[in-house]
Amino acid sequence: MRGILSTDEYQLTMAQLYLRAGLADRRVRFEHFFRTNPDYGTHQAGYCVAAGIGDLARWVRTTRTTPADVEALRGHRGRTGARLFDDAFLEWFAEVDLCALDVHAVPEGRVVHPNTPMSVVEGPLAAAQLLETPLLNALNFPTLIATKASRVAEAARDRPVLEFGMRRAAGAGADAASRAALVGGAASTSNAAVGYAAGIAPSGTHAHSMVQLFLALGEGERDAFAAYADAYPDDCLLLVDTIDTLGSGVPNAIATFEDLRRRGHQPVGIRLDSGDLAHLAVRSARMLDDAGFGDTTIVLSSSLDELAIWQIVTQVASEAPRAGLDADAVVGRLVFGVGSRLATSHGAPSLDGVYKLVAVDEEGAWAPAIKRSDTPEKVLNPGAKGLWRVYDAGGTATADVLTTAEEHLAPGTELHLHHHGRSDLTRTVAADGWSEAEPLLEPIVVGGEVVVDGGQDALDDVAAARARRRADVERLDPGVRRLVNPHVYHVSITDDLAELKAGLLRTL
Amino acid sequence: MRGILSTDEYQLTMAQLYLRAGLADRRVRFEHFFRTNPDYGTHQAGYCVAAGIGDLARWVRTTRTTPADVEALRGHRGRTGARLFDDAFLEWFAEVDLCALDVHAVPEGRVVHPNTPMSVVEGPLAAAQLLETPLLNALNFPTLIATKASRVAEAARDRPVLEFGMRRAAGAGADAASRAALVGGAASTSNAAVGYAAGIAPSGTHAHSMVQLFLALGEGERDAFAAYADAYPDDCLLLVDTIDTLGSGVPNAIATFEDLRRRGHQPVGIRLDSGDLAHLAVRSARMLDDAGFGDTTIVLSSSLDELAIWQIVTQVASEAPRAGLDADAVVGRLVFGVGSRLATSHGAPSLDGVYKLVAVDEEGAWAPAIKRSDTPEKVLNPGAKGLWRVYDAGGTATADVLTTAEEHLAPGTELHLHHHGRSDLTRTVAADGWSEAEPLLEPIVVGGEVVVDGGQDALDDVAAARARRRADVERLDPGVRRLVNPHVYHVSITDDLAELKAGLLRTL
Repeated sequence: MRGILSTDEYQLTMAQLYLRAGLADRRVRFEHFFRTNPDYGTHQAGYCVAAGIGDLARWVRTTRTTPADVEALRGHRGRTGARLFDDAFLEWFAEVDLCALDVHAVPEGRVVHPNTPMSVVEGPLAAAQLLETPLLNALNFPTLIATKASRVAEAARDRPVLEFGMRRAAGAGADAASRAALVGGAASTSNAAVGYAAGIAPSGTHAHSMVQLFLALGEGERDAFAAYADAYPDDCLLLVDTIDTLGSGVPNAIATFEDLRRRGHQPVGIRLDSGDLAHLAVRSARMLDDAGFGDTTIVLSSSLDELAIWQIVTQVASEAPRAGLDADAVVGRLVFGVGSRLATSHGAPSLDGVYKLVAVDEEGAWAPAIKRSDTPEKVLNPGAKGLWRVYDAGGTATADVLTTAEEHLAPGTELHLHHHGRSDLTRTVAADGWSEAEPLLEPIVVGGEVVVDGGQDALDDVAAARARRRADVERLDPGVRRLVNPHVYHVSITDDLAELKAGLLRTL
Repeated sequence: MRGILSTDEYQLTMAQLYLRAGLADRRVRFEHFFRTNPDYGTHQAGYCVAAGIGDLARWVRTTRTTPADVEALRGHRGRTGARLFDDAFLEWFAEVDLCALDVHAVPEGRVVHPNTPMSVVEGPLAAAQLLETPLLNALNFPTLIATKASRVAEAARDRPVLEFGMRRAAGAGADAASRAALVGGAASTSNAAVGYAAGIAPSGTHAHSMVQLFLALGEGERDAFAAYADAYPDDCLLLVDTIDTLGSGVPNAIATFEDLRRRGHQPVGIRLDSGDLAHLAVRSARMLDDAGFGDTTIVLSSSLDELAIWQIVTQVASEAPRAGLDADAVVGRLVFGVGSRLATSHGAPSLDGVYKLVAVDEEGAWAPAIKRSDTPEKVLNPGAKGLWRVYDAGGTATADVLTTAEEHLAPGTELHLHHHGRSDLTRTVAADGWSEAEPLLEPIVVGGEVVVDGGQDALDDVAAARARRRADVERLDPGVRRLVNPHVYHVSITDDLAELKAGLLRTL
């Protein structure tokens, strides 16, 4: 785990300033939110999937300043050669207690929307400021990848998605990507360390290099396959495109499968990693069927993402009948291996999450903070707030609503809502037009302890997060789930919050 | 540092197969290369900058299988519920010696081109196979980011570039990104841990939140600036866009600077983080000049990349004279803060590096391995190879040349070259048309020891890598350095290698 210096330098310079100004212990509230759903250029996300909160909680609970950290700052010289950080600050920094910070968050795996607080930090100003970068680093990227994985899983129509991106992912960030992919809906990952840690057996069989090796030794693809089948008689999945997919790979795989069958084993299937994947899947399915291996799997990989998978499923549906096959049966045996384009969120490689000061303690009450902008959508919604998800009469999520901290949304009343960024856009939900308002933020770390049932293990639980994602996605309107040009989900503020905001803007 | 299970699962399944087949210790050679320079959509890289070799060397030298790693594999059940990895393999895996692998590589910071081996691994097959994913993970991403940084530095025309991307970078991959940005030409990073470790003081001043805080406390921007100037009288750089850049921020900064000047200090400058940055830079420069602060810096940030910087420099050149300012003087006081778009290589978030088996030991000699493809450019250049950079008479790099292992390129002879992927495309370089052939691959780790002068510290030395990059970029043709539609650099193979390749393809 990275240390307390894994932050932006300006958090340290601001902390020293706050210490000097007597403000280091002033209680404040920061909120973390992203402004826009990922836009992949030709397609766009209609929602995000929260991820990363377990690592954030661990960082807050366990990170301590080390003597080496203090020495690094002591050695930092400013422009004139004088030390940038003085002894008083280094003394404070050596003892800074991140456990004084309380963290609330939307649980991992839940659907989240732009301009709503995914996580909230309350505590002493200087410590809360130091946490800004580690928090954004811990949450923005996993949320981005869990979101992409959810889209890929939706395009795959419940067929398994395997995450394969480690080799081209962002260094050590590969692990966060693999884990977030599992949260977002991938069935498994090739990342062995992450798979074993999550309790989800990692996926993998063999590479082209295995076939190449046998060829270089003067043997053939068939010998390579036989060696694989010998080692893994009950888990035999063969990569068939090293030489010639239909001319050599599939026939050799079928011959190998026949050997296995004679020995009482059931082969798993084949993998296609190049060429026209939909066409080759149909042709391979036909060959496998004709040889009596209709129940084998066909894994597809090579530059896949949600659009490529959607296209493959569409093309299979059109080509399968022409090959005398049932389209659903072919799609129903597909598995998708998705690599770089998932692990890097191709097209939208970062989430624009920010961490904004929204309130400052003034003698026990929150004084709201605001930041204006020439763009109305970028004006901060000020003050300590509540976040609620409102469901319509049919149980579909219809809006995420920001309230003042004091408000409580109770069904059976009329809701007056304003657009989160443009208060002049209003909408009224009749009392019988909604059935439930669910608070989304939960306390995660309070006083240095995980306050969720099950503790840190519960925060790290991938299976629980996946279940939350599935349940939340099911409750979205199909238009919001659309892969291209999704319907914009309502993010609203209440009358009270709109008034507070307008009042503060007048005083600026 | 991540462990031996930070690899793709199929490396483990292949290793077990090789152990069973009696091939685990067969000596092999793998080469790592990328196929294409990053293509950012509207602009393209004409070269890459190698990075990441120090972390790779450390991983090879220090990674050992732990008992927990063995237990993870022991618990892996296949489809029938039987163990996937048997005792013989677990015994082998517990003792596998990565130090039996020798690594050669092009040194960090050097310019590298597609389809040439950036790194080469020789050693026992099963261990070399396990290394595939960690090697690709360690080298592909830093090379991608060093390349982007080099482009950004070129667009900035020698003005400093500060890397700010940690908050939206790929989790722990942020650190590799920050370090690679320094290798590629960034002057500094905001990533405190990485900056201090590299011996390059990290950059940072204050955020909008500092100004917001003073406002929430009933004070003003001027008070916030005064507090900052008080804490950092000789390092005072103020963020001026929290309220109104030209109406409030710059005038308040000037008033603060005047206070500093009266007290005998010299202010550093201002930072602009929103709006029309080029226009605001010119207007701010004018205001600062008029107040006698012509020597202050103007830091620009907000969604910058190489094209945005190029546009800003162009716009400043056209707007500055109209404001009565010298364009070069305005450009000469700019500093560029570059965040997400550098740390994620926006537009091309992954490098397509691969690790391919090229040769297998046959009784002491290398038997070449090949892999065919329907795309001629993707057919592997087989066998153990040499890699040379050929310079023309003026000292400009004119081609990177792959040879067989036995060949030695000596100036004063005619060079017969073939396109690396299409042997029918040939080119002859006259004996007086080139002045030097420089071998690019160097031994890095041999027998578990770093064999570079200075050891691991030399591999980790950012300053040395930056110097190598600068020298190599200077020796590129300006057309290859072009930000948009760069000239394609020649990557060639010799007659001997072309013959070997053609012969092997005939046998397939």
